[in-house]
Amino acid sequence: MTANGQNLHPSQDPLHDARARLLGQRGGVVWMSGLSGSGKTTIATAAAARLVDEGRLAFVLDGDRLRSGLNRDLGFDAAARDENIRRAAEVAATVRDAGVLVIASFITPYRRQRKTVRDRLGGGPFLQVFVDAPLDVCRDRDPKGLYAKAAAGDIPDFTGLEDPFEPPTTSDLVLDTASHDATACVDLLHALLDERGFLSNEDVG
Amino acid sequence: MTANGQNLHPSQDPLHDARARLLGQRGGVVWMSGLSGSGKTTIATAAAARLVDEGRLAFVLDGDRLRSGLNRDLGFDAAARDENIRRAAEVAATVRDAGVLVIASFITPYRRQRKTVRDRLGGGPFLQVFVDAPLDVCRDRDPKGLYAKAAAGDIPDFTGLEDPFEPPTTSDLVLDTASHDATACVDLLHALLDERGFLSNEDVG
Repeated sequence: MTANGQNLHPSQDPLHDARARLLGQRGGVVWMSGLSGSGKTTIATAAAARLVDEGRLAFVLDGDRLRSGLNRDLGFDAAARDENIRRAAEVAATVRDAGVLVIASFITPYRRQRKTVRDRLGGGPFLQVFVDAPLDVCRDRDPKGLYAKAAAGDIPDFTGLEDPFEPPTTSDLVLDTASHDATACVDLLHALLDERGFLSNEDVG
Repeated sequence: MTANGQNLHPSQDPLHDARARLLGQRGGVVWMSGLSGSGKTTIATAAAARLVDEGRLAFVLDGDRLRSGLNRDLGFDAAARDENIRRAAEVAATVRDAGVLVIASFITPYRRQRKTVRDRLGGGPFLQVFVDAPLDVCRDRDPKGLYAKAAAGDIPDFTGLEDPFEPPTTSDLVLDTASHDATACVDLLHALLDERGFLSNEDVG
């Protein structure tokens, strides 16, 4: 509600269009899901760097950032993982409302979580990307040493091991990081952003 | 943690400086506290509009926005009010990290909540503003009809009535909205932002 008691939808934010004109862009969210070690954050960071280099305001929102702050009260059971994603989608929506291209990087292992994300964000500029790599490849990479910890019993219910990663069946883009390097994946993502109008400033007034 | 297992402080975000150069500004947070009806959101909205008009990326984050989304799972007892503010400060920090001047408008009634906010945000560009108006004035304004509802018993523990608003004793700015109109308050806030370097782009590289 606003100060005068009316509901304020983000698109009714009186500064929404003015910010888009100022930035020469509309905000958006690219939501990247995939196993730990699949390459989500690597691709997100490289894609955001390219966008900023091109003069666009881009920002990486990832699970580690939220787990160390907003969501540090949450555990890792199924309900807490759902709440982690619900809050992440809300934060992504807010940063998007500010005019930013948000590249969100979250494992998002359950189908219902990806539905939560799409339901919350699909009303605005939004893409769902599945960063796909076989479990064996992710386990071999193990960039954070988490698979090793999980194998040693230090992380219960690790996604991909005891806890399922339900493969997405509907994505705007699938990035196969076992076959393509990060540069190729960023190129594919950038091309899709271009194709879907995320990089156009024609409609910002 | 980043993909290579290191902790990522926002100031170590590899795109932090690049975004500042792109925008010609550093992000920041102005946190406005005060009773319902004190004029927080009115001033926040007008101040943000002026900043955007001047070419700066500004965004209003207010309690209604969060209560209808991120914090819709929270009630209004003291613990839930604390959690509401904890999360709000985290969201403000994230939007600031993206390079945005955030004007946050939350009642923030308890001293310990304002400490939470300062502890979380004080390490970066941050101002605390007390939007001060006597309870009687706020109750007469009652822009959302909330004081009337509270008086009718429909809102328990309403801040300023049954539940305390602990007046801030340390603020960067006090805006007396009983004596000054919104334009004058925005002028005072804008002048402080200027004085404190929020409007300078000299250090953005």
